[in-house]
Amino acid sequence: MQVYMSYMGLCLVLGLMVLASTVDAQANGRNVIPRDQRDCTGVRPRLAPTTIQTTQQLVALRAQMELNRVPAYIIPSEDAHMSEYTAEHGKRRQFISGFSGSAGLAVVTMFKAALWVDGRYYLQVEQQVDCNWEVIRADDIGTLTPFEWIENELLYGYPVAFDAKTMSIQMLQEAELFFRKSSKQLRLQRLQTNLVDRVWRNQPPLPNNMLMIHELRYAGKTWQNKVMEIRRKMQEKDASALIVSALDEVAWLFNLRGTDVPFNPVFFSYAIITGNSIRLYLNAINETQNDRRFQQHLNQCLSPYESVPCVEVKSYNAFYEDVLLVASLNSGKIWITQHANVFIYDVITEIKRLIEPSPILLMKAVKNPTEQMGMRNSHIRDAVALIEFVTWLEKEVPRAKGDARRLSEISAATKLKQFRSQQQGIQGLSFPTISGFGPNGAVIHYTANEQTNAAITNRNMYLLDSGGQYLDGTTDVTRTFHFGNPTAFHKEAYTRVLMGSIDLAKLTFRTGIYGRDIDVVARAPLWEGGLGYKHGTGHGIGHYLLVHEGPARIRYGFRPNEEPLQPGMFLSDEPGYYEPNSFGVRLETIVMVVNKRTQHQFSNWTFMGFEPITLVPFEPKLINYNMLSIEQIEWLNEYNKQIEQKVLPKLSAEAKRWVRVRTKPINAQQIHRLNAGNTAPSINMGIMALAALFLCSFLVL
Amino acid sequence: MQVYMSYMGLCLVLGLMVLASTVDAQANGRNVIPRDQRDCTGVRPRLAPTTIQTTQQLVALRAQMELNRVPAYIIPSEDAHMSEYTAEHGKRRQFISGFSGSAGLAVVTMFKAALWVDGRYYLQVEQQVDCNWEVIRADDIGTLTPFEWIENELLYGYPVAFDAKTMSIQMLQEAELFFRKSSKQLRLQRLQTNLVDRVWRNQPPLPNNMLMIHELRYAGKTWQNKVMEIRRKMQEKDASALIVSALDEVAWLFNLRGTDVPFNPVFFSYAIITGNSIRLYLNAINETQNDRRFQQHLNQCLSPYESVPCVEVKSYNAFYEDVLLVASLNSGKIWITQHANVFIYDVITEIKRLIEPSPILLMKAVKNPTEQMGMRNSHIRDAVALIEFVTWLEKEVPRAKGDARRLSEISAATKLKQFRSQQQGIQGLSFPTISGFGPNGAVIHYTANEQTNAAITNRNMYLLDSGGQYLDGTTDVTRTFHFGNPTAFHKEAYTRVLMGSIDLAKLTFRTGIYGRDIDVVARAPLWEGGLGYKHGTGHGIGHYLLVHEGPARIRYGFRPNEEPLQPGMFLSDEPGYYEPNSFGVRLETIVMVVNKRTQHQFSNWTFMGFEPITLVPFEPKLINYNMLSIEQIEWLNEYNKQIEQKVLPKLSAEAKRWVRVRTKPINAQQIHRLNAGNTAPSINMGIMALAALFLCSFLVL
Repeated sequence: MQVYMSYMGLCLVLGLMVLASTVDAQANGRNVIPRDQRDCTGVRPRLAPTTIQTTQQLVALRAQMELNRVPAYIIPSEDAHMSEYTAEHGKRRQFISGFSGSAGLAVVTMFKAALWVDGRYYLQVEQQVDCNWEVIRADDIGTLTPFEWIENELLYGYPVAFDAKTMSIQMLQEAELFFRKSSKQLRLQRLQTNLVDRVWRNQPPLPNNMLMIHELRYAGKTWQNKVMEIRRKMQEKDASALIVSALDEVAWLFNLRGTDVPFNPVFFSYAIITGNSIRLYLNAINETQNDRRFQQHLNQCLSPYESVPCVEVKSYNAFYEDVLLVASLNSGKIWITQHANVFIYDVITEIKRLIEPSPILLMKAVKNPTEQMGMRNSHIRDAVALIEFVTWLEKEVPRAKGDARRLSEISAATKLKQFRSQQQGIQGLSFPTISGFGPNGAVIHYTANEQTNAAITNRNMYLLDSGGQYLDGTTDVTRTFHFGNPTAFHKEAYTRVLMGSIDLAKLTFRTGIYGRDIDVVARAPLWEGGLGYKHGTGHGIGHYLLVHEGPARIRYGFRPNEEPLQPGMFLSDEPGYYEPNSFGVRLETIVMVVNKRTQHQFSNWTFMGFEPITLVPFEPKLINYNMLSIEQIEWLNEYNKQIEQKVLPKLSAEAKRWVRVRTKPINAQQIHRLNAGNTAPSINMGIMALAALFLCSFLVL
Repeated sequence: MQVYMSYMGLCLVLGLMVLASTVDAQANGRNVIPRDQRDCTGVRPRLAPTTIQTTQQLVALRAQMELNRVPAYIIPSEDAHMSEYTAEHGKRRQFISGFSGSAGLAVVTMFKAALWVDGRYYLQVEQQVDCNWEVIRADDIGTLTPFEWIENELLYGYPVAFDAKTMSIQMLQEAELFFRKSSKQLRLQRLQTNLVDRVWRNQPPLPNNMLMIHELRYAGKTWQNKVMEIRRKMQEKDASALIVSALDEVAWLFNLRGTDVPFNPVFFSYAIITGNSIRLYLNAINETQNDRRFQQHLNQCLSPYESVPCVEVKSYNAFYEDVLLVASLNSGKIWITQHANVFIYDVITEIKRLIEPSPILLMKAVKNPTEQMGMRNSHIRDAVALIEFVTWLEKEVPRAKGDARRLSEISAATKLKQFRSQQQGIQGLSFPTISGFGPNGAVIHYTANEQTNAAITNRNMYLLDSGGQYLDGTTDVTRTFHFGNPTAFHKEAYTRVLMGSIDLAKLTFRTGIYGRDIDVVARAPLWEGGLGYKHGTGHGIGHYLLVHEGPARIRYGFRPNEEPLQPGMFLSDEPGYYEPNSFGVRLETIVMVVNKRTQHQFSNWTFMGFEPITLVPFEPKLINYNMLSIEQIEWLNEYNKQIEQKVLPKLSAEAKRWVRVRTKPINAQQIHRLNAGNTAPSINMGIMALAALFLCSFLVL
């Protein structure tokens, strides 16, 4: 306590200098507050036009920290539901730091402010964050973790504060483990209020948009059946209640969708399932409760003693009280997940807590036959939109002659949105389109804005990562193009990315394997050439839900709660290569995990593989066919056949021509033509070229 | 306590029936005690001739458990040094269960006995263990762990006992974690004595064979330099003492070797390093202490205040007292590893304990240039021995005409040992030779004995896994042969194993990667055909030390304390396929991790790969070249060139001929010849065959 007091002394000096307590600033667009010369002297003399100035927000936050005797304040990226993408209301880390990426963590002390970002955002963060912030590249070797950094900054015995609702149990446990071992005896301090909210004057309210019923013909399974399955799993774990706090889990469970979070068809809500009750807590309760359709869909409870499953619809704000109530009234354990927030954790006594992955996570990831069919169909319609767009774009590039007012990253994305909006069942995009030309393509999670918006020309690579939300599925597809003459290195990079993508897609693997075990297959062709990428190879994808979902992924390294791959899971297969300040390549294809028959069957083992669901052709002029193995070419031919069968019939005449050029079976003639100018000196290349030559002559005969 | 008493009541009934207290039985050979009809009625009516009967051992052990009020007793495979392979003295699990595999855990309760074995031993255990034992296949899905099994068997509040010296800290921590959560409130009970030792009348004594000095021209680094490096690492961790309890770590540290454990050139010992003292505890102290050579080598301390590093040589039995002393006299932490035994753990108070991987583990695994050179050279001499042997064997097979008295698994292994013993620097074998013909080849860690010893004929596959201990290195090599006409499936299995082996050997991977991340590369070609193997792909190997060593391995799945691959590490690359009751294929090549230059270099990343150190040819008649990619064939040709350059000149004329047939560059003619009878119906095969045909015609021109 004494030590803490001396810290308070230091703070008082600073505190007296502070007048402003709240700031009106828009973290989204440009910040119009003039640059504060006291804090930003000389470090980065000329701010980029995209930089967000944060001096006044920080001054205001530190005043609040002062008032609350908080020497260090952790500001995670997440809201109370631990969403990766959240409503404007919850973008506290973005408000305070200016950094708008989907992941990242900020820590503010009285004198310093630090921001951790992962490899996807190394370039973006440079463009957005001002000199108040120490940027820490979390994927680099030897960098400090947030906890290590805090330990260096604080004095003995200081508290480390955070808003209990914005920190997950998982992070709390990591923090506790670290600070327990820490020699400085730092301690964690929960705040029941959010200090950023206090200084964010124009913070948008928590949305409460109208819900939508996700019809059974799309969902494939009633919520009643889903609840039954969940209750079985609760019994297995001896749990008397399950707390559902992830928004996509609530939406999936009740076959409901919403529009509260851009690109994510969810709504602010919680749910509590017990053996004899089903409670749904809605922020849009007034809008929903009295609507006949919802009453019917949810079989809204009239009394708590109904004989068939009914849903008690309650107010969002009643949730935490009810958790307390449920925990005290029921004898069994209360099942929460590591991704619940610390506020929920604290409400339940330790003896009652069962912290396990949510049963909904796996049920949701393994799509039922109706969902599978919907994913297939929506991906075909999405491919139509994307192909029609690129057909248009390819014509437009020479016409625009490099004039960004006629054709730019942003205008292209807008045009693509128009093509998608013509597709049946479209509900919007599944994430902000990544439309990156040349150097911008090397920013892994790039979003074009007025300052960065580049013209699309025929002089560099164009990376396009986009997706739609359809009633019957969510899409996420990346293709990379070049509308002029690619360099040899452009082709090599593209081809190695393609090889990795194909090698993963055609892999046969034993049932029970994790995504982390097979990730290297997609990286190996890049590593072979000294290339690589600093992100995962694949993420799960929802069914008209979130574009990123667990519990399976394809990325090496151990991460808690990863589940083995299972038939019916949908994942992305997206290796890439990013040459800083030059160009980016990423090829992303959604694949479904399927059972695979093999010639033999050792020891009753079963095997699985992937079926490609995204059906958009790759770009032949960027492929160096010399580098592909016979098996890779065969996979490519089979993939192109699928496109011709399923997508081609739905296209315009012009788009059909565009596709046919790209889906022609790769034959000897083609390889021959490509090889013509390529008299490789090494025996290696020679043998391959000759093999190709022979194939050619064979096919001519 | 009350519950415990009721258990004692039960035991008394059983106890009165028991008379024998110690048993004279040899767990190694056949057990001559007549079958006890009370325990083995009908379950396995006809015992295999290799079965070891254990009824009397168990009766005696249970009497001891009774006396010590122990309802469940855990018998790990390991001795006080946690060695994988130990002296006869420490083979308690083998004595009690009859199972002689290198890994496995036994648990005995008053009424049951259970044995956990991993996938390598599934077949062997069936041949050895009698009906007293419930065998649990630990690598199968859904089987109970030992702790879960114990929880099922015992009543509320019972103790679970073990000898503190035979259990590792790691296992203790796992057990504590499990039993803390257990609803039955079972508790762990350390015994300071070993109950198996009490009933093992003819237990061999702990060996105290004479030590040998491992000369600097082989070791490459003085123990003084090694101690200096260790002390630097101790400072980094704020440790005042390092306790070394692994036998190979002591041997490596002091550049000493021994013969206490068959195949493992170690000696029973401990060491304690502090900032100003170096203590070595030897079981062979009388033999060593007064020898001038050792006094000189170790600069044996005359007084504790010498100015240059000197070693205090003390008695093995003084170790535990000294740990206590060191822990109480020094202010800093005492560094022990998770593989130290629980007795050591208990001697050090919690606040003083630093449980971290031993610094020696990594230092030892990353070989210095002298050790690397020795490994290369010893592998060349070892290849000479193996090739001369197989040349002999191939001639011998038709002569023996299937007569096991003329040529058998055992006699072949003996002959191979003779060839090895002619090599310079040979000190013995590095493990019992696995010489498995036909069905015996499918027993992954097979050791032939009188009962199983099969004739080697030309009618099936022959798997040979063997290695030597040389002054300048340890070898471990597996090749599989067929001296007649292999079936198509023999060839497919061999080829797929070879493909996995080559794909791993030629992989380029990013620095910082773990072996677990790349394991799938070796499995993929097997999985593709529905085949596979139930063991790791690679283990570390010592330098004139243990044939298995950490901290790196190649096996998917997260395991604690695994370290990333580093240049200078030596690992095995050994995929396999085992068709039960039919045949086994394994191809094991020792490879060294090396830095690898790549054409490009992304983001300052560096890359690594493997260099093959084992130089023994593969068997062309077992290779289906159709299945190999061009890159795989190129790797094979380059490998064969290495053999011709480095091994061939040292061979007899006959062996030279044998090698040359196998190292000929693979060219079109050869593929053509092999393809002749193989008009594959699938397009896939067709294209490959035609490509081969073309290559052929090209080379003819």
